[in-house]
Amino acid sequence: MTRMSEGLSGGPADLADVPPETRSSTGPLHASVNDPALTSMTLLNEIAGRFPDAVSFAAGRPYEGFYDVADLGRYMSAFENHLTDELGLSPEATRRTFFQYGRTKGFIHHLIARHLRNDEGLDVEPESVVVTTGVQEATVLVLRALRTDTRDVVFAAYPSYVGFLGATRLVDMPVRAVREGPDGIDVADLEEKIRRARAEGLRPRAVYVVPDFANPSGASMPLADRRALLDLAAREDVLLLEDNPYSMFHSGGERLPTLKSLDAERRVVYFGSFAKTAFAGARVGYVVADQSVVGGSLFADELAKLKSMLTLNTSTVAQAVIGGYLLENGCSVERASAREAEVYRGNLRAVLTGLEEWFGAGGPMSGAGVSWNAPKGGMFAVVTLPFRADDAMLEYSASHFGVLWTPLHHFYAGNGGFRQIRLSYSVLTHRQIALGIERLAALIADRT
Amino acid sequence: MTRMSEGLSGGPADLADVPPETRSSTGPLHASVNDPALTSMTLLNEIAGRFPDAVSFAAGRPYEGFYDVADLGRYMSAFENHLTDELGLSPEATRRTFFQYGRTKGFIHHLIARHLRNDEGLDVEPESVVVTTGVQEATVLVLRALRTDTRDVVFAAYPSYVGFLGATRLVDMPVRAVREGPDGIDVADLEEKIRRARAEGLRPRAVYVVPDFANPSGASMPLADRRALLDLAAREDVLLLEDNPYSMFHSGGERLPTLKSLDAERRVVYFGSFAKTAFAGARVGYVVADQSVVGGSLFADELAKLKSMLTLNTSTVAQAVIGGYLLENGCSVERASAREAEVYRGNLRAVLTGLEEWFGAGGPMSGAGVSWNAPKGGMFAVVTLPFRADDAMLEYSASHFGVLWTPLHHFYAGNGGFRQIRLSYSVLTHRQIALGIERLAALIADRT
Repeated sequence: MTRMSEGLSGGPADLADVPPETRSSTGPLHASVNDPALTSMTLLNEIAGRFPDAVSFAAGRPYEGFYDVADLGRYMSAFENHLTDELGLSPEATRRTFFQYGRTKGFIHHLIARHLRNDEGLDVEPESVVVTTGVQEATVLVLRALRTDTRDVVFAAYPSYVGFLGATRLVDMPVRAVREGPDGIDVADLEEKIRRARAEGLRPRAVYVVPDFANPSGASMPLADRRALLDLAAREDVLLLEDNPYSMFHSGGERLPTLKSLDAERRVVYFGSFAKTAFAGARVGYVVADQSVVGGSLFADELAKLKSMLTLNTSTVAQAVIGGYLLENGCSVERASAREAEVYRGNLRAVLTGLEEWFGAGGPMSGAGVSWNAPKGGMFAVVTLPFRADDAMLEYSASHFGVLWTPLHHFYAGNGGFRQIRLSYSVLTHRQIALGIERLAALIADRT
Repeated sequence: MTRMSEGLSGGPADLADVPPETRSSTGPLHASVNDPALTSMTLLNEIAGRFPDAVSFAAGRPYEGFYDVADLGRYMSAFENHLTDELGLSPEATRRTFFQYGRTKGFIHHLIARHLRNDEGLDVEPESVVVTTGVQEATVLVLRALRTDTRDVVFAAYPSYVGFLGATRLVDMPVRAVREGPDGIDVADLEEKIRRARAEGLRPRAVYVVPDFANPSGASMPLADRRALLDLAAREDVLLLEDNPYSMFHSGGERLPTLKSLDAERRVVYFGSFAKTAFAGARVGYVVADQSVVGGSLFADELAKLKSMLTLNTSTVAQAVIGGYLLENGCSVERASAREAEVYRGNLRAVLTGLEEWFGAGGPMSGAGVSWNAPKGGMFAVVTLPFRADDAMLEYSASHFGVLWTPLHHFYAGNGGFRQIRLSYSVLTHRQIALGIERLAALIADRT
């Protein structure tokens, strides 16, 4: 539900008023429309919709307190000036950039490369960047490219981001689940799973990881694990798909390098998002794909071919807005999103403090058997409960105690996480967080 | 080449400076990256790029003389006012509409429904509209939904729009070619092809058609053929995929009804575009999918599920701009694009007049064996030459005579059209058109 169902209302149409005999049937549809991840998201949204007054730890959307519609026009003007003044485009070429079909790989690739140098210490060739309609499109492009026949398979730590799982469904790419520990993906388990897949005649292609502040777990990989993962990828000749939407929301202390910046062999395909930093509605993300392809071309150029059959190019106005956002902030997203990062840091502290006060040593419910992790950043934390926390329990929690959260089993494709819940704190006030944890404590007291 | 390679420059990166041993290979990629349609577009763009001073009948992009960057901010403001004043949204809800993840089916569906009523006499339920990242995404969504296993197959008249063919490649959907006559798809041939496919154990799902001013042929289907096509679709239980990007550029005389407005059984899935009317860079299109699905849901809602795994939602700023464009013009695209329509009408007259003057009865080359069609609107016409008009001939035409055009065989997946060329006249002046046809005549004189 992280990226779902905000904005204008509108559920399924009521078909009751249309005589069924005048409405043709489509016939059977691709299995992905019945994907369990989708069905569960619909269910969660439906429950959330029925309890609008509950404190919601379920809504994963970014903080919206600093949004101002007036920024959008200013960003576009900043980008227009950049085209004319910095790049020297003629008025005709500038107009064409805004209005016509554009370069398939996008036209803010050079600004994205500057941002990666400024904020991640990462040097990428602008030509290896493909600007996409959000990371979601980028994920579909990469998976579409890698799924050549029934032998291809990818790996992901479970619990896993539902958007990634959805993308695999669209291209019929099987996902092999890898264990996740408190420090992210279990590299030894990954190695075993890759070998097992090979023994079955499958062709392991890639491993999906969110090394910093994963969704849903909030886990971050230690440096040694990052290096071990890169070594394993080299030994097994698989790509690493590094998704990095949350790194700007770090603790403020020392940061770990991205996999991509440790990637001497260019084995990492890097996904970057502006959804949580600039704004989600723009639908602007990107992928850095600097691998070579048999025949000598650049992976980014092959992905662009697929994009030319999928969306042609990322919306020019959306790119211009994000381009202006980058330019206004010296191509530092860290600078641009400093206020949001401060909100998330404060909210994370409030969540951890609240949990400690209720369930920690000396707290009123210290013996209840509740534990939780302590993410170093991001937008999510995970709480382990002493009872089954499934959709029925969520419904009970909402109706009897006025608090919403996300059952973790939805991120396991139904195969785990039945006693865990995700707490998302991005859009809450400290007061709402305290109230929500108090209500959670009441639920737990009721069930134990 | 219709929707390609405008805007900022940037070819494939030069890999020569990166030691090959430090750049991992991706391994094999999905066959669609080697699709002949893509390869041919790359080739055509490359030829066009080498002859910038040639008169180009190859560029299929919309006329750009009326574009003004200042319009974009005004459109956004108009849409913002619509949200607050007409729909009564709070300032918070308005901001959220612009900035957050949005409704998967989009938020300008009601304005699109008004446009369809105003300009096409078409009544659609707003809930059956899915706003997409251009028609290209809509096509992929529909084909993805319909491709359930290896038996599913679709039909299209050849020559066919390369964007449609590209979308079929992405989802591994086979396309059966149907004959096209001067009046568009040959319904009798379609019937035979459908029956033959069924006899082979395949499952015919849908037929792709552009009834008005098709790309590349410019052909329009007569009313009787439209009715016959609907009857056939009902008998054979297949969907009709009606793509309608050009209907606003009609002759100014009587217009024919869309398939969708004749569609009593809701057998037509209707694709609408703003690329040629508002502007292409926005990447805003839509699909009207009012069929029912087994289980009783609406096809549009099933497509939205797939979209939630592909792009989540269409860019909010792009939707807001197109929403404002519609609002400023009373939700009449015909009114909004009247100036462009006049340009295209005038250019089409100039093309047909030029061809007649050179190759018609009494013209200097009346005996050269050149013929052409007379489209009633749109952006394209087709000329039949007395010799092979392939890529080598295009190269020769560009280098020796300074005129570019598109070999029609690219729209036949290489199986036809070798003596035909597409003339696109959307971005030319009357003077350029006259000069281009003079140069074409010189080429023809040289080769005959």
